[in-house]
Amino acid sequence: MKRNLLTAQSGGPTAAINSSLAGVVFGGLSSADVDKVYGAVNGIEGVLKENIIDMGGFADKGMLELLKQTPSSYLGSCRRKLPEKAENEELYEKIFSVFEKYSIGYFLYIGGNDSMDTVKKLSEYAKEKGHETKIAGVPKTIDNDLAVTDHTPGYGSAAKFVANSVRQLYLDTLVYDMKSVVVTEIMGRNAGWLTAGASLANSGALHPVDIVCLPEAVFDFDAFAERLNSVMKEKNTTIITVSEGIKDSAGNYIAESKISRTGGDGFAHASLGGVGKTIEHFISEKLHIKTRSIEFSTLQRCFSQNASLCDIEESFAVGRAAVDFVTKGQSGIMPGFVRLSDEPYKIEIKPFDVAEIANLEKRIPKEMLSEDGMNVTEAFEKYARPLILGEPRIEYQNGVIELLKR
Amino acid sequence: MKRNLLTAQSGGPTAAINSSLAGVVFGGLSSADVDKVYGAVNGIEGVLKENIIDMGGFADKGMLELLKQTPSSYLGSCRRKLPEKAENEELYEKIFSVFEKYSIGYFLYIGGNDSMDTVKKLSEYAKEKGHETKIAGVPKTIDNDLAVTDHTPGYGSAAKFVANSVRQLYLDTLVYDMKSVVVTEIMGRNAGWLTAGASLANSGALHPVDIVCLPEAVFDFDAFAERLNSVMKEKNTTIITVSEGIKDSAGNYIAESKISRTGGDGFAHASLGGVGKTIEHFISEKLHIKTRSIEFSTLQRCFSQNASLCDIEESFAVGRAAVDFVTKGQSGIMPGFVRLSDEPYKIEIKPFDVAEIANLEKRIPKEMLSEDGMNVTEAFEKYARPLILGEPRIEYQNGVIELLKR
Repeated sequence: MKRNLLTAQSGGPTAAINSSLAGVVFGGLSSADVDKVYGAVNGIEGVLKENIIDMGGFADKGMLELLKQTPSSYLGSCRRKLPEKAENEELYEKIFSVFEKYSIGYFLYIGGNDSMDTVKKLSEYAKEKGHETKIAGVPKTIDNDLAVTDHTPGYGSAAKFVANSVRQLYLDTLVYDMKSVVVTEIMGRNAGWLTAGASLANSGALHPVDIVCLPEAVFDFDAFAERLNSVMKEKNTTIITVSEGIKDSAGNYIAESKISRTGGDGFAHASLGGVGKTIEHFISEKLHIKTRSIEFSTLQRCFSQNASLCDIEESFAVGRAAVDFVTKGQSGIMPGFVRLSDEPYKIEIKPFDVAEIANLEKRIPKEMLSEDGMNVTEAFEKYARPLILGEPRIEYQNGVIELLKR
Repeated sequence: MKRNLLTAQSGGPTAAINSSLAGVVFGGLSSADVDKVYGAVNGIEGVLKENIIDMGGFADKGMLELLKQTPSSYLGSCRRKLPEKAENEELYEKIFSVFEKYSIGYFLYIGGNDSMDTVKKLSEYAKEKGHETKIAGVPKTIDNDLAVTDHTPGYGSAAKFVANSVRQLYLDTLVYDMKSVVVTEIMGRNAGWLTAGASLANSGALHPVDIVCLPEAVFDFDAFAERLNSVMKEKNTTIITVSEGIKDSAGNYIAESKISRTGGDGFAHASLGGVGKTIEHFISEKLHIKTRSIEFSTLQRCFSQNASLCDIEESFAVGRAAVDFVTKGQSGIMPGFVRLSDEPYKIEIKPFDVAEIANLEKRIPKEMLSEDGMNVTEAFEKYARPLILGEPRIEYQNGVIELLKR
């Protein structure tokens, strides 16, 4: 018997999450086991409020392509974490009553580790109560910090934007005949994958990045100063990439360090601008090098014009695969990537138990970090370079990117 | 008799200044009146230091195309302003002795209003002393503030990056079901063209920008608050675009306003992060709306992957035209654009006397501003939209933009 499919998006947006949505919708609309494809607006909130829309319009190929190039979450998002069943069983009952009302045979939740926690809880509840709805997660996060899967959809595009920005910022520093440093603050509180991804700017004749500051290593101002001074002996300018989440040996965020500034009110206080500004002040005040800091902010997760084709296509494929898995009866799983080879780059998509993913964080392993923790190794380059390859065709109208608004 | 051509770049880099360089070099290499084409490194400094390179390698079409897609200044830049002749005639003599040594019949200086001042002084000196070198400027500036010319090379690409970023940042704000504001701080100290350009994000079903804060209008916190509150009654989120140079009615920079903050050291002080942070604090502290500020920083002048084809092609054409004009005997001129029609967009390139351009600034005229000064009119849209149209083909290698390094 044909059942309906419901999908939703959760967590922070990426340039590729709508490509996964497109994959889910395409998979659903072309599956013999699926009748209607629905989308819940603002994640699990939309399920609870029955804010549910019919996605049948995406049978149109033009619409589907436009969805793939649209960054951010088409269906909206939420940050709501489900309570334990014991704390609020009514909530679970409400969700499954909505599933029943809409004849939802398949629920696919696109998101990061928090969302996988929701998938885990709902699929366990379904099993326990004998509900037939099959529930799966579809991975996404620019942070690349999901366990088990080789990498996450959304990471390649964010890393590509960051690497290309850093590359062009570096060229900009070469213009004047003087020493200068640019500090780029990059997202990733506990895992430094995206910050490390900026080092992919190093290619061909250009080597912008010499120092990366990652949450995987303790940040020490003295060691950093020594390393930077040694870099500046060799070249006029460099781009330092800094993860927002770096900490000192006592476990305190560097963003909250008290770096005294000259001028102004004269008080030593934490920088208002985050870790980038803190490091900028340190370099200019203590090392006396002209420095500018740049925070990529939400631009790094939403700038589709520099997306990775590999990422966009894999995001689509993983969404489609999730439909395959649930319609074949699997539940409580998340399709992820297994790397078969680096050169040529080959992956396969397999279902993983969400219990192995939910609430866990994958950080950069030791072999991808230099001994002093301030750079990445060849192993990282081999791992990450394939993920940023290829450029999707982008449609424009009136000089601006065509975007799909719900 | 064939003479050599010397070119150089000055002022801040743009995504299109190397396209103008390509136009000059192509024009020179294909002109019957030009023997060799040279480039001086770091602007007029390179002339004084005889840091001069042969540009003959750009006869290769692949190299020339790569130069066109490379942002920043291939030949490097400087910010040196020439003193008046009376103050340091030796400097002038030195420059012309270098011209003589290298048989420079034509000197083309690519830059903004300061560079046009150099062109003016050198061409007047040449005339006065009977030097035969013909001297012309080639316009560039993301600020679009050069007098006489309809617009400037470099502006279209910067405006396109800003508009496309704002458009995608807006989509990002729509993701959560809550009110929020993003403040984008945009370059332009005295002229608001680039900040106004962000409003080109408004197109089709998306209308991200409702308020633009320009140096052409006095910024008043109360009027701003009233306008923003009225916008937020109509919609959940909006992007406010703010020029770094906005001032209050007393002529003080808003970036230096004392906006008291809660928490922290409790002192009221100027924001460290510039005008974006100041406005962000004002909105979140006084109007109690969730706000984030983003400074595009140098990214807005160097991100080639979102360049405007119109801009890249016109920048090339204006460089080439400058060669035509000087080889026909003109001196002390800058080729500029005359707008023939908006729809269809048509321009012609004409030589203008640099004396009409040097040291002047063109600001946004009244008819392009709304009455309250907080928005642009249809007239601005008509003027600016054609300048961001078209997308150049970008070459990648290893997932990053191919760039030419000197």
